[in-house]
Order: sequence, then structure tokens, then C-alpha cells
Amino acid sequence: MSKPVIAIDMGGTRIKTGIIQDGTILYSASIDAHSGKGLRHRLPFIQETVKNMLHQLGLSTADIAGLGIASPGIVDSVQKKILSIDKKFGDAPDINLNEWCSKTFDLPFTLENDARSALLGEWKYGNAKNYENIVLMTLGTGIGSAAIMEGQLLKGKHFTAGILGGHSVINYTGDSCNCGNKGCVETEASTWNLPAMARTQKNFTESKLSASPVIDYELVFRLADEGDTTALHLRDQSLQAWSAGAINLIHSYDPEVLVLTGGIMASSSQIIPYIKQYIDTHAWTPWGKVHIEEGAFPGTAALLGIAHLVNH
Amino acid sequence: MSKPVIAIDMGGTRIKTGIIQDGTILYSASIDAHSGKGLRHRLPFIQETVKNMLHQLGLSTADIAGLGIASPGIVDSVQKKILSIDKKFGDAPDINLNEWCSKTFDLPFTLENDARSALLGEWKYGNAKNYENIVLMTLGTGIGSAAIMEGQLLKGKHFTAGILGGHSVINYTGDSCNCGNKGCVETEASTWNLPAMARTQKNFTESKLSASPVIDYELVFRLADEGDTTALHLRDQSLQAWSAGAINLIHSYDPEVLVLTGGIMASSSQIIPYIKQYIDTHAWTPWGKVHIEEGAFPGTAALLGIAHLVNH
Repeated sequence: MSKPVIAIDMGGTRIKTGIIQDGTILYSASIDAHSGKGLRHRLPFIQETVKNMLHQLGLSTADIAGLGIASPGIVDSVQKKILSIDKKFGDAPDINLNEWCSKTFDLPFTLENDARSALLGEWKYGNAKNYENIVLMTLGTGIGSAAIMEGQLLKGKHFTAGILGGHSVINYTGDSCNCGNKGCVETEASTWNLPAMARTQKNFTESKLSASPVIDYELVFRLADEGDTTALHLRDQSLQAWSAGAINLIHSYDPEVLVLTGGIMASSSQIIPYIKQYIDTHAWTPWGKVHIEEGAFPGTAALLGIAHLVNH
Repeated sequence: MSKPVIAIDMGGTRIKTGIIQDGTILYSASIDAHSGKGLRHRLPFIQETVKNMLHQLGLSTADIAGLGIASPGIVDSVQKKILSIDKKFGDAPDINLNEWCSKTFDLPFTLENDARSALLGEWKYGNAKNYENIVLMTLGTGIGSAAIMEGQLLKGKHFTAGILGGHSVINYTGDSCNCGNKGCVETEASTWNLPAMARTQKNFTESKLSASPVIDYELVFRLADEGDTTALHLRDQSLQAWSAGAINLIHSYDPEVLVLTGGIMASSSQIIPYIKQYIDTHAWTPWGKVHIEEGAFPGTAALLGIAHLVNH
């Protein structure tokens, strides 16, 4: 049995924390991310949350093997630095997290991209367990991805391989993305851009969407079910965009299985059949069909994966 | 010094053959592909061409180390089978090329995808020599690609990794591709689809393109230079499409260098600066800029690469 570890998943909306031992979450807690305001001012709250979890379990840092952070953006897991992080947590590349971890907890530090961490979680403990060639795609605030080829987590020379599936161009005459690119999967269909996408629809003002203070995919899927034309159009466009993004990942990494996870997968019953059908019809896979799996741990895969990395 | 080898590059327009020793082409010859009629009826002509080359060099098959074929499509390099080949050489998956090679020449046989072969040629002898993380993109009848990551030629579980860059979706609401997918780089900008792309342009009948029996990129680039509106539009759309395809390859494989090659690169002076600028502006590469190189062997990289594979 390994020592328990402290795992932190820096989501754009919530920062999740957990004490994890051999794939089991002993305790977990989360705090608001307020990611627009940066990471530095959240560190004291993270510290507080972690100390409280340890206290609840009757543990001290001496009982803990290490601390791992799963972060969005491009992450140098060797130097343990966040290299580039879109607009979320914009100050993170300037923070020495390794030093923070050492000074605050006196523990070894591990850092990895959040989608790579989620893929490790699904690979070690979840629905990608029996495969060695895997692509994971997260549908949420942004669109994330990661890949394992022949049992190796793909990182690349500059740590960007596998994780930029949300920034695959699927509409080369499309709008600008936060990342500086144009027509990315994220720009075409993700929660951060959904309100803007909705407002540019014809008939938006006649749609029930226009009456809602918050426009998210849960609402879009619900109103589409009720026959709201604008919601139907947004749903269909988004399903097509995610499918195209999934095809690009499959064509890039030649996986046996595609794991779909992330917040939007709360509506998985409307998403999985569409993407499966699209991939079965359009992907160039003469060897057979790519398996499509829903993530086993929609909320905690990244925590489980980064915890695994701390121990290995 | 290695023994010379027989190298064959099954292009959709021309089948190229060569006798190659340690990266030097001792003799080469090519025949019409007539690829629409299949491969089987071309095998006797290939045999004849090879025998003639050997004769010209005063060599017999006893002097030769082996025979290698670089083929378009998806290729199982272990079982030495062509698995899927789009519409070109449609009968190729049913031909036992290993047996043909053995019966005809009594030589060991090597088979690999043509873009992977071209990348090996550029890596071992050409403009990708000093890199270990490379993406190659061929612009021609179709759009091909291949990738080397950390010094390893990428193949994937089912031999499709790296080579489907031309079938990356860059316009998910776009037209159907030969491959069964929609809005591929190839569909948006390649020689096979260029006549169809031209004919759907407004003002096509007023363009000089409409007077030409053959519409290829050489003509499009020339007429664009002369200010022909339709040609200008086609050129700009194609440059954008190739750039988007290049970004998808860069985002997928995290290379240090992108090598551009293929027939369309005859107009490289109009292509390279555009793609370089686009990538510099739009690719998410916080570590720096991807080098852009023109292939050193636009006509023979695949021959050189497959010859290298025969010896290794």
C-alpha cells in the first residue's frame, strides 16, 4: 500500500482537492476558482483546505507521500512549471509552485496537465483500464484532450503533444480563439463560448435561451429536447464540432478507444450516440471501429491521475 | 557500404523506381501510374523497368539487398500489406506484394506508407537531418503527412498514426472527401479536388482558368500573380487550408520542424512565407517558433526513405 497523497485539480470554475490513497479518495473538498483573478491569491485558500482535509483524517504531512497539481494549459512536468495557460489563471506561469509546495507542506511536488491527469485516472482505475492506445477528450468550459500510445503517455518535445485537441482547427474560416488560433473546436463548441454562440443565432430573441441569465449546455440540451429551434441548432452544431474534433484526435493518435468526459457529459445520453455514429461513419479506421467510452470519474479522474503520478 | 536496393514509389500519377545505395540514386526511371485502373496490371511494367535499370548498371538481383515499395494509403509494414488506399490503386489490398517480390526478384521485401518514407528520406539525408521531432506535409494530388517524435517514426497501433494529416477535418460543415470523412484538408485544397473547387467559384466562367483543359496549382498560382480574381481566391483559400492543416499537425505532434514537400511545392516561394507567417501567428507553441523547411528532395524523398528502410 502506498502512502496517501494530496491531489489538486485546478479547474477554471472549481479547484478540487483530495487526499488519495491507491486510487481511493479518502477525503475531498473544493473551493471556488475565481480563475479570472489569478492563482496566487487562491494559494492560501488551497493551503487552508488541504490542512483541513488532513485534520479531518487525523493525518499530518509526515503521513503523506507528496502533493500533485493537475493544471490546465501547457505544463513542463520535468521542470514543474506552468508554461502557458490561456487566460485562466493568467499569473500561474510566474508562480514557483514547487517552492510553494516545499515551503508550505515540506512535500515533494508533482505537476501535470489536467487532461493528461484525467487520462491517467481513467487508464489506471477507470474505463480505459484494458487499453494501451487511448485518446481522452474532455467537454467542458474548454475542450481538453490527452493521448496514450502503446502504453506511453504522450508529452512531446515541448510538452504540447496530445493536449491541444481542443485547439484543433475544425473551421479554418472561423472565429478567433482565446489561444490565438482560429476556428478551434473550443471556439465552435464549448461552455466558455456558448453564450456568444447563442447570441449570434438568428431568432435568438425568440428562444427561451434569451430569457436565461446563464446559458450552459445543460440548458441547451433541455430546450433542444423541448423543440426550441435555437437550442436545437446549437446542440446539433456542437455535436458536429465535437465529432470533428474527435475524428482529428483519432486520425492523429490511432487509438483503440476514445474516452469522453467533462462537465458537458452530464448530457451524455444525447452526446455519446451521436459522436459514436459520426465516428463509425467518418473516421478512416480500416482495422475496425474505435470504442467510445464515457469516463468512469467525470468529476475526479484528474485527481486520481495526478495522485497516481505522485506515487510513480 | 551497404548493397544497393530497389526502391519503388507508387505515386498516383507516376510510379517512380530507382536503384539506390546509401542515399545515392544510382539510376532512376518512372512509368505512368494509370492508378485508376489498379496496380495489378502495372506490375509487369514495374518488373520490366526494374530489370532494365539493373541491366543499365550491369547489376543482377544477387547484387541487391532487397526491394522496397513506398505506397499511398494505410500500410501494415509488419505484415507487408496495403490495408486501405482510398480510390487510387483500388486493387492493391488484394495483391500479395511480398509474394510478387519474392517470385519476381527473389529478394526480401519492405513496404511502408509513402509520406512516412519521404519523411525518412528527409530525416536521413535531407532537410530534417538535425531534428528528432519532425512533421512532414506533402502538398500534391492528395495531402500526405508523417511524424517523428523523439527520434521514433510514428506508426500507431493500427498503422494510421501520423499519416492522416490530409484527412484532418478543417471545415466540419464542408464537402465529403474520398476517404468517407467531411471537410478534410484534401477536400479543401489539393490537386485532385482543384478542378471541382474552381468550377464552384463565382465568376469561374470569366476566369482564364475556365479556358484551360487542365486546372492545376501551377496555373492557379500563375494566374493569381496576373490578378485573375478566381485564381486569387483559390490560391488564398488553399494557403489558408494548408496552414490550418499544418497547425493541426503541429498541435498534434509538437515538432521542432515542419518539412513541406510534394508537387505543389514547385510554387514554394508563394507558399512557404504564407504558411510560416500563419503558423508563427496562430500555433500555440509557447516554447518558440516551429522551423519551416522545404523538402530537399521534392521528387525522390520517398525513394530515398524506403531504400533506407530496406537496409535497416
